[in-house]
Amino acid sequence: MKADWIAVDWGTSNLRAWAMGTLGVIDHGESHEGMGTLSRDGFEPALLRLVSPWLEDGRVTPVIACGMVGARQGWIEAAYRAVPCTPVSAAQMTPAPTSDSRIHVHIAPGLSQDRPADVMRGEETQIAGALALNPGFDGVLCLPGTHAKWTQVSAGEVVSFETFMTGELFALLSTQSVLRHGMAPDGFDGAAFDAGVDEALSRPNDLAARLFRLRAEGLLHGLTPLAARSRLSGLLIGAELAAAKPYWLGQPVALVGAEGLSSAYARALAAQGVTARILPATDCTLAGLTALARELLA
Amino acid sequence: MKADWIAVDWGTSNLRAWAMGTLGVIDHGESHEGMGTLSRDGFEPALLRLVSPWLEDGRVTPVIACGMVGARQGWIEAAYRAVPCTPVSAAQMTPAPTSDSRIHVHIAPGLSQDRPADVMRGEETQIAGALALNPGFDGVLCLPGTHAKWTQVSAGEVVSFETFMTGELFALLSTQSVLRHGMAPDGFDGAAFDAGVDEALSRPNDLAARLFRLRAEGLLHGLTPLAARSRLSGLLIGAELAAAKPYWLGQPVALVGAEGLSSAYARALAAQGVTARILPATDCTLAGLTALARELLA
Repeated sequence: MKADWIAVDWGTSNLRAWAMGTLGVIDHGESHEGMGTLSRDGFEPALLRLVSPWLEDGRVTPVIACGMVGARQGWIEAAYRAVPCTPVSAAQMTPAPTSDSRIHVHIAPGLSQDRPADVMRGEETQIAGALALNPGFDGVLCLPGTHAKWTQVSAGEVVSFETFMTGELFALLSTQSVLRHGMAPDGFDGAAFDAGVDEALSRPNDLAARLFRLRAEGLLHGLTPLAARSRLSGLLIGAELAAAKPYWLGQPVALVGAEGLSSAYARALAAQGVTARILPATDCTLAGLTALARELLA
Repeated sequence: MKADWIAVDWGTSNLRAWAMGTLGVIDHGESHEGMGTLSRDGFEPALLRLVSPWLEDGRVTPVIACGMVGARQGWIEAAYRAVPCTPVSAAQMTPAPTSDSRIHVHIAPGLSQDRPADVMRGEETQIAGALALNPGFDGVLCLPGTHAKWTQVSAGEVVSFETFMTGELFALLSTQSVLRHGMAPDGFDGAAFDAGVDEALSRPNDLAARLFRLRAEGLLHGLTPLAARSRLSGLLIGAELAAAKPYWLGQPVALVGAEGLSSAYARALAAQGVTARILPATDCTLAGLTALARELLA
């Protein structure tokens, strides 16, 4: 099971790799050796631990990687490309220094926006994949997650984008703040989620006051940990939608993200009269890396 | 140096105690044995480690305590009193179980508000102290901190209040989130703080988008760690002021909090045309505990 080339999605917390052949994915593997856990000289060994079974002695296997692996604190910094521009460009990939002669590693550049200042790493490859899977798509792509991105895409280019720390805020508030005392570790209560979205969208500047109320309602009125979790999620996604309104209002919207999270965003958007398509995130990542590989290895 | 009675402010992170005599404070001590670090049977030993030098054999010394020591996870739960009501009531203090016969411990009740649901523990004693030090005060007291409180006070009663997780959000975002990479550990840049307050107050529903921009401006435009820290503080305090506007607009405002933080709030309010008086927090805590002691021991 040797790979023609290897696709790698290397984020802050996780490393995922796919052995690619002529007909697509042959094998895949993943580890928790994300960018955040590695020092500069730890990247090559971490990659080899995952991909060496797919390598052939005496032959160079190209590795195409995207994500935080190209950050300043990553393996090697891959320069940002400034929007408006195509989401990815094989000509502007950054080679990573390696000592094992069986691999050549190419890291995809991220995207930057001058004003308002913004950056992305990894999502640009998912956007390229979404466009490869949906040729001619014009409209808005939302990529929910730790740092959710809203992007305006037109004529194959990313025109503008905006980042929201919604996923990170949810993780910090639900597990590290005083709210953790009344918060279920998982589960989804649709009505509580909807109430949170509605609260945040109808009075967006009240968010700061709504958060502690979850704690107080737990103490005084028996708000359940599941409802508290779902309402917190709704409040934060609702606040994001309030601020991202110029993106989604009257536009075709597609969501690229994990299934449960994308469904929650789609539900919140539906309550605002917007029907969003859901594109599976991993399919988009792989399609984007494949587009890069085709161009680079052609 | 024996105490007539002992004043205790026992929060989540810290324990502070004062030996009180006829003329006021005789001695004081503090430790990091806050409520959050103790199990139920750890409270009495933690208190004794601090106050035993002030106790006399064969005599009972009253201990008046306020704060999270009276929470459900504390020494013993002290019931909430529902607003509108006076900030404290000696008649409704909760005795804590002790085995050392030299102390009698009384814990002050917190305050609750039915709708919108809200609770406080510890601040009610500071409010009582602020009123004791400023008899006849009618207006708004703001108590900045981990969970900032805005309270409407009239005719000696707390009429309503609202809690904002501003301090906790600042701590989480500046030390645990992606923003920590570009964030100074301390210091204050007045112009950057003012810019953050103004951004949040002029477009309060954009807060969710403003946070990640601090990171992007650090990467792209060289925003300094000190400016990033001060602008984050300004953004969060500005968002609080936007939501708390019904409290401070056209009202006499006094701030009860740590000196630096109160000054920052006063600066933000001044930009909105509100001149706020600053009352030192520890003076208010002690005056509130003293008022309780007078009533209880009379």
